[in-house]
Amino acid sequence: MGPDSSQDAQTVSQVGEFGLIDRVTTGREQPAGTLLGPGDDAAVLAAPDGRVVATTDVLVEQVHFRFDWSAPRQVGRKAVAVNLSDIAAMGAVPTGLLVGLACPPDSSTELVDELFGGMWEEAQAVGAGVVGGDVVSATALTISITALGDLQGREPVTRAGARPGDVVAVAGRLGWSAAGLAVLGRGFRSPVAVVGAHRVPEPPYAAGPLAAAGGATAMVDVSDGLLADLGHVAAASGVGIDVRTEQLDVPQRLLEVGSALGADARHWVLTGGEDQALAATFPAEAALPEGWRAIGAVTAGGGVVVDGAEYEGPSGWQHWR
Amino acid sequence: MGPDSSQDAQTVSQVGEFGLIDRVTTGREQPAGTLLGPGDDAAVLAAPDGRVVATTDVLVEQVHFRFDWSAPRQVGRKAVAVNLSDIAAMGAVPTGLLVGLACPPDSSTELVDELFGGMWEEAQAVGAGVVGGDVVSATALTISITALGDLQGREPVTRAGARPGDVVAVAGRLGWSAAGLAVLGRGFRSPVAVVGAHRVPEPPYAAGPLAAAGGATAMVDVSDGLLADLGHVAAASGVGIDVRTEQLDVPQRLLEVGSALGADARHWVLTGGEDQALAATFPAEAALPEGWRAIGAVTAGGGVVVDGAEYEGPSGWQHWR
Repeated sequence: MGPDSSQDAQTVSQVGEFGLIDRVTTGREQPAGTLLGPGDDAAVLAAPDGRVVATTDVLVEQVHFRFDWSAPRQVGRKAVAVNLSDIAAMGAVPTGLLVGLACPPDSSTELVDELFGGMWEEAQAVGAGVVGGDVVSATALTISITALGDLQGREPVTRAGARPGDVVAVAGRLGWSAAGLAVLGRGFRSPVAVVGAHRVPEPPYAAGPLAAAGGATAMVDVSDGLLADLGHVAAASGVGIDVRTEQLDVPQRLLEVGSALGADARHWVLTGGEDQALAATFPAEAALPEGWRAIGAVTAGGGVVVDGAEYEGPSGWQHWR
Repeated sequence: MGPDSSQDAQTVSQVGEFGLIDRVTTGREQPAGTLLGPGDDAAVLAAPDGRVVATTDVLVEQVHFRFDWSAPRQVGRKAVAVNLSDIAAMGAVPTGLLVGLACPPDSSTELVDELFGGMWEEAQAVGAGVVGGDVVSATALTISITALGDLQGREPVTRAGARPGDVVAVAGRLGWSAAGLAVLGRGFRSPVAVVGAHRVPEPPYAAGPLAAAGGATAMVDVSDGLLADLGHVAAASGVGIDVRTEQLDVPQRLLEVGSALGADARHWVLTGGEDQALAATFPAEAALPEGWRAIGAVTAGGGVVVDGAEYEGPSGWQHWR
């Protein structure tokens, strides 16, 4: 429920731009690093490291989410999660979010309240706040989020530092969101474990800074699929990556869903996007930080292979392709 | 023309997400403060002040701009300008921009090249770079921009510091964009001076930091109209503002256009938005910084009046109202 549930039958055109901004900002508790929150021309955030990490992602209704498959609060959480996991993938901790919302004038204020409620939930779980934003009218509901983060003195971990001989490791879940999407696509609403994973990912936020502190040589968040995103690391680093399926856990739950749907659960793990896991490379001699598990090795050469061979199967999802 | 004009007949769906990102990032020169530019999970920007100023604005085709009235390069420049002027209004200097572009799959790559070309033009004029972004497919073209800035050791100038007795001053143009919009709305394409002002504002970027250094007590950028935006200062500061028309210059060019259209040019100056002028309050004893001119006074009480009386006429533009 919104801050004033007696007004929940209203539309955004009825409360207007400034009324809407009031609704989504009033009564929220900003973290200490928010030196100036919403309501002015711009926000001011602490950047104690002297550098700021920044990323932006845009989510469009019917392209990235559907309200018949996800509740507005879940969409809000996911929109924030995909941005925060990019911050984590640099080895940084999130500090604040800016939210641009374009929505049809007949959208209900309750929808907007729930979207922002979800955004705040996900942000506060990592100590960040929604520090600013913009709301405008449009024909399609579009959420654009910018996340900012602080490196806390660590060097950013890019995609470009992997070296032959490094260990490839992942933190977080793989394939769960793809399994949930497959279930929803068949018209089912359960098992809840995988459908819920598609609706709201659970990025291993803390694993990013841990990897940076633990000597990770390269890191990426898995948004398009493990093989596709490791492909970015391989290309940026000028190396090859060999994923070893003997090291790659395919959870029992996914095997069951795959079996029920006649689908290959391992394929979800290798290519499914949107779980916002993290993948990183570490020196072979390094002990993997908590939450990380080895799944392969960095090799000379280029590209990503599975057990030494090119992977047969559709690759990660790409816009417009 | 884009970086590869031989491909200009292509659509964004033909080049795909990653092809498009390559087109709009390749060959651009980042300023020194861009420690890590586009191509990774997130960008890293210098934040030498230890604080970062951040603002976001969303522009939707047919709501905020029309391609039959503005060229894509002009839309790109304006989209960046409205964000950078928010940074200036805090007394900060811009450091970087993140761009979210949602566009239909059949958009031409030339359109996207021109949009980003305009964004870069406007950004580089103030020493900032486009450091990151996201491109996604959508039914309507939507541009969301986040601008970041550095305070260079100054305190941010909010809307809340105006005190009775302060001088109200502005920097930059007022009413020009509204005049241009009126001309375009009548089906004309000239005079170029006002039509051009509507297509691409000329925010007085440098005046923001100058005002902060010169003791401004409150500041706002004029995006919705002078009276409307001064209203935000009055409300946030708990003061009244009296705009004195004897001090308010109505340019000869606007008088001519107003006369030709049978419109009141002074009304454009008082209520026209989108010129991205800056309005600020200064202690009465302070010398106004370069580029600033006095237009009124801060009073006890509340609200904004013109020559001591409530202004009769439509107020600034608001979404959905």
